[in-house]
Amino acid sequence: MSGSEKQVIAKIRHSDALKFDVELDSRTMELNSTKKMGRAFTPMELFLVALAGCTAMDVQWIMDKERQKVDRLDVVIKGTRREEDPSYYERIDIRYALAGPNLRKDGVERAIRLSQEKYCSVRAMIKDAVKLRITYTIADGAKPEQEYTFPTASANP
Amino acid sequence: MSGSEKQVIAKIRHSDALKFDVELDSRTMELNSTKKMGRAFTPMELFLVALAGCTAMDVQWIMDKERQKVDRLDVVIKGTRREEDPSYYERIDIRYALAGPNLRKDGVERAIRLSQEKYCSVRAMIKDAVKLRITYTIADGAKPEQEYTFPTASANP
Repeated sequence: MSGSEKQVIAKIRHSDALKFDVELDSRTMELNSTKKMGRAFTPMELFLVALAGCTAMDVQWIMDKERQKVDRLDVVIKGTRREEDPSYYERIDIRYALAGPNLRKDGVERAIRLSQEKYCSVRAMIKDAVKLRITYTIADGAKPEQEYTFPTASANP
Repeated sequence: MSGSEKQVIAKIRHSDALKFDVELDSRTMELNSTKKMGRAFTPMELFLVALAGCTAMDVQWIMDKERQKVDRLDVVIKGTRREEDPSYYERIDIRYALAGPNLRKDGVERAIRLSQEKYCSVRAMIKDAVKLRITYTIADGAKPEQEYTFPTASANP
């Protein structure tokens, strides 16, 4: 899942102050140490996007495979950093929001669990010191949106 | 280092197949499960860029602080994935290439060490199952470029 090429190579080059230019095959991106500058992203932002994107793709892929129709899938991810160095995320909140005509709670929870415990390669690289809190909401068009808390997952490669 | 806001929030929304749109404040990005599509990035690509960018910013920042003039700083990062699920990077090679008029090997190595062991927040979240191999090259304009292997670092939050 989430990209299957065995080797991935990126090149980054210093441009100015703490700005860097990224090259990935023919694609480019800008990095900066502060988000307050143009279109650049910070490394810590990209880390969160990598995690959210990885698990979102898994969930979408699993729901598709199981023919559970998903009309909408959003993932909101929030990272909270430590004060001390290294100021990694001591907590990451992931909220999946799904909508579809006949979504079942157990099916959604199973898809999230498979991603968190089996498929998500980004998730599998993250140390236990980073606490993940996972919630999800389901809207099926008929009933009002329901919110659930996912039992804490742990993946140990 | 590498962005200091305490909370970071990203929103991603499914668009089509395994494509997702990312929103980070007012900035946007596209994600896809394969790199062979337009300007999108895969989650695993972003993970590598996050790690390379984080440590590159640290090294630049430390060298600046110590008044060691750096004319050029490139970081090339290569991740090699496992075959099995989760197919995380079982190995990541990071090569720093620095050029400057009076760069000292011990100064460069110290900057890399401080990043790997103390400052790099992305590095600090990565499990030991991911093996990091670190090399660096120094070009000072007079002598030919020298290549060094960095003793394996381990950071344990």
